[in-house]
Amino acid sequence: MSSTGSPLLAGLIDALRCLPGVGMKTAQRMAFHLLERDRAGGRRLAECLAVAVERIGNCTRCRTFSEETVCVLCASASRDRSLLCVVETPVDQLAIEQATGFRGQYFVLLGRLSPLDGLGPKELGLDLLARRLGEGEVRELIIATNPTVEGEATAHMLAQIARTTGVHVSRLAHGVPLGGELEFIDRGTLAHAFGGRQAFA
Amino acid sequence: MSSTGSPLLAGLIDALRCLPGVGMKTAQRMAFHLLERDRAGGRRLAECLAVAVERIGNCTRCRTFSEETVCVLCASASRDRSLLCVVETPVDQLAIEQATGFRGQYFVLLGRLSPLDGLGPKELGLDLLARRLGEGEVRELIIATNPTVEGEATAHMLAQIARTTGVHVSRLAHGVPLGGELEFIDRGTLAHAFGGRQAFA
Repeated sequence: MSSTGSPLLAGLIDALRCLPGVGMKTAQRMAFHLLERDRAGGRRLAECLAVAVERIGNCTRCRTFSEETVCVLCASASRDRSLLCVVETPVDQLAIEQATGFRGQYFVLLGRLSPLDGLGPKELGLDLLARRLGEGEVRELIIATNPTVEGEATAHMLAQIARTTGVHVSRLAHGVPLGGELEFIDRGTLAHAFGGRQAFA
Repeated sequence: MSSTGSPLLAGLIDALRCLPGVGMKTAQRMAFHLLERDRAGGRRLAECLAVAVERIGNCTRCRTFSEETVCVLCASASRDRSLLCVVETPVDQLAIEQATGFRGQYFVLLGRLSPLDGLGPKELGLDLLARRLGEGEVRELIIATNPTVEGEATAHMLAQIARTTGVHVSRLAHGVPLGGELEFIDRGTLAHAFGGRQAFA
């Protein structure tokens, strides 16, 4: 790759390949685009990325990505603390936040039950969730795990935990296509499924 | 975008959109991927990008991207200084370098003749090229501009300059599809066209 005549450029092209879906050709185009037409954007990306990778951790309350101990959504006084929506990943949280008018709070599992991958109740923070449900503030637990086999198993375990604390449990309405991933569903469908959520059977 | 609960994350997603072909959804996926699975890669990308944007300028001899005054290819003692290949952009240079066994040197126009865009002989560094041809070291000028209307016009001007200095002029062989861009051609075709280059008519 030193065939570009510039070791720094070769290094940049190689580094860009850490992005998902970016191969050699795309990385080359990105590097040349930034150097030829958008150095200011490249400089800003470098800064944002360095700061984000260094400072973004997880919210101690909901486990989503956050640079603060408690994230903006958890700290907000205008969110309804009696509604708690459980999602697998921050991407799913963002999808729901953008598609629906949900004004409650979230709990992010950062995964789904998958014993083979070493993901059990402890890794998903279910003890933290049980403690929060036990505080009595949450009135309804909205389960929004992915409609996959592992997501369904996770949903059943979440429902069990909620029942022991007497919290009402609901889940996204049918309408979410089975076998899919939340983040790829169009906003209309997701809003519909969210609005029509039903009691956990 | 503060709906992610993290202003830093929102900033990163926004900054990623400066990359060509990256919209909101792709930027989200990239940001979450880096934070969840590849922080080391993200850190390295931030460093490479910052250094590249800051330090990569242009080679004073061939005008390609380089962090040195004279780029690696121009400084190399193992490259044949009697062969000079003229390309429009560093991307085209890279494509030829990767596809062919060319061991000569390059001259990068950083554009093509396009008076409406303010790109004339001066902007393409043709005075620098003429001076270099006048030095007498170059025996053959290989024209590898894109086979577009503007690229053809550029090729004719290059041929004129070379003729005044008595340098032999050749160009990529037929085989390169008309109306296309060099960087998208498969290596085999490009190697064939490069090997079968013909005297400028």
